[in-house]
Amino acid sequence: MTSKESTASGGPETIEERLRRLAGRDNFNNLLGIEFVEGGAGRAELRLKVGQPHLNFYGYCHGGVIFTLADAAFGLANNSRESVSVAIDAHITFANPVREGDVLIARATEITARRRIGTYRIEVTLADGTPISSFSGTAYNTGKPIPD
Amino acid sequence: MTSKESTASGGPETIEERLRRLAGRDNFNNLLGIEFVEGGAGRAELRLKVGQPHLNFYGYCHGGVIFTLADAAFGLANNSRESVSVAIDAHITFANPVREGDVLIARATEITARRRIGTYRIEVTLADGTPISSFSGTAYNTGKPIPD
Amino acid sequence: MTSKESTASGGPETIEERLRRLAGRDNFNNLLGIEFVEGGAGRAELRLKVGQPHLNFYGYCHGGVIFTLADAAFGLANNSRESVSVAIDAHITFANPVREGDVLIARATEITARRRIGTYRIEVTLADGTPISSFSGTAYNTGKPIPD
Amino acid sequence: MTSKESTASGGPETIEERLRRLAGRDNFNNLLGIEFVEGGAGRAELRLKVGQPHLNFYGYCHGGVIFTLADAAFGLANNSRESVSVAIDAHITFANPVREGDVLIARATEITARRRIGTYRIEVTLADGTPISSFSGTAYNTGKPIPD
Repeated sequence: MTSKESTASGGPETIEERLRRLAGRDNFNNLLGIEFVEGGAGRAELRLKVGQPHLNFYGYCHGGVIFTLADAAFGLANNSRESVSVAIDAHITFANPVREGDVLIARATEITARRRIGTYRIEVTLADGTPISSFSGTAYNTGKPIPD
Repeated sequence: MTSKESTASGGPETIEERLRRLAGRDNFNNLLGIEFVEGGAGRAELRLKVGQPHLNFYGYCHGGVIFTLADAAFGLANNSRESVSVAIDAHITFANPVREGDVLIARATEITARRRIGTYRIEVTLADGTPISSFSGTAYNTGKPIPD
Repeated sequence: MTSKESTASGGPETIEERLRRLAGRDNFNNLLGIEFVEGGAGRAELRLKVGQPHLNFYGYCHGGVIFTLADAAFGLANNSRESVSVAIDAHITFANPVREGDVLIARATEITARRRIGTYRIEVTLADGTPISSFSGTAYNTGKPIPD
Repeated sequence: MTSKESTASGGPETIEERLRRLAGRDNFNNLLGIEFVEGGAGRAELRLKVGQPHLNFYGYCHGGVIFTLADAAFGLANNSRESVSVAIDAHITFANPVREGDVLIARATEITARRRIGTYRIEVTLADGTPISSFSGTAYNTGKPIPD
């Protein structure tokens, strides 16, 4: 029996269940401690508490950590359909510094989804809503089915 | 005696020695296993061998890993002057898939450095030169001296 | 008497009046036929009807036209404060084709405005709301007063 | 007889002849006064002398003009193959101000060209080599033949 069949609900896997499953087996997300909050068709929300391993050489949260969190939300949102999508392009701003102990939230929203190309916006904020990063991502839909 | 004074050469710290020192105390770079190759005024080169912890939910190297490597080279290149710079903006392409065992190289070059704003290009390739990602970064120079 | 003093309302110039005045003396916006719709603190909305002069070599609206419209909204939004701001960075997606006769709307919103750096999102849509381009811009505030 | 057949050389149209022909029938490039310099497989160079119609509300060259020049070079470089390509994403920096009378040069280079997705770097400089803008573009190859 594959994990695809054994859903908590007993019925066919929902989009949110699939996204949670994909997030759970992402090694790099797990290395960072990224948590799945919720997701659905064309959207995903993730969370990360910034700790010592995430700091850069000046003692602030590394830009790569913030990017990875946004990119992970982007990757789930663009893989919430029936086929495998891959990121081809991303842009990110770094508007405010992030410190150890801060909690980051990334929310991905689908702007357009054509047959091959989809565009997404991801907003990264602190838990209190302070804007940190605005991320824009473009994904290419390969048309191949999502593996179990 | 600060680390700044105790350089291998015995003389005042060179730019490359300073960049190597900054890279060495970057927690997130260390978590990933990013290695300093070389650097100088307005440039830096880093290297990363992709391992299992770097993989995403489809088993390829996570975009956040590639971004982090490029961003780290960018961060060293824009901190190769006398004052602290911070990233404000970055764009990255993902042109080819990266697999476990691949060796990634990121080379950062300064395009412009005005008083407050600097622009940088970073090319990420495989060890054999295959292009992986083209990264562009903009940095803001705070004017504050680089701490020991 | 400067134009700054002779406002329609007779009182001191409002932000919207100033943005309308700035937009009206922008040669390139005028060459394209860009119309000011409305604006305020940290925001602006512009409009353009796509005509023959805007078309590229395949007969679709040129990407430079869509970028210019978004960039013009961005430029007004980041100059809605007391001092001169300049664009340092912009990213744009092209999600759907635009044809002669289409009406484009660009709406700029301020995400963050720190002392020196501001970040903005601009959404370009057709008049019916169809998403065309997602634009992100970063501006540098020079601190110099806006000239009359 | 189509224009495709009536090349200056009398033989089949070269890539450079085709790019020159495409550039020549681009309405928006013509409106701005963009000149074709040279081109070939995966590359193109264009030139523009900045005049009064290109200025923004502060009297400097409008960011949309610089973007359009870079985007036009990108569009020719990514249409230098046998099939129609469209831009899906672009990022640009604005590193130095541009004034009336300045001559801008844009040089597009192909970084990668896979079956569907190609990535390009475009450098915009003044005639004396001063860097103005670094542009990165991603294009989607539709696979449809280029029309006469």
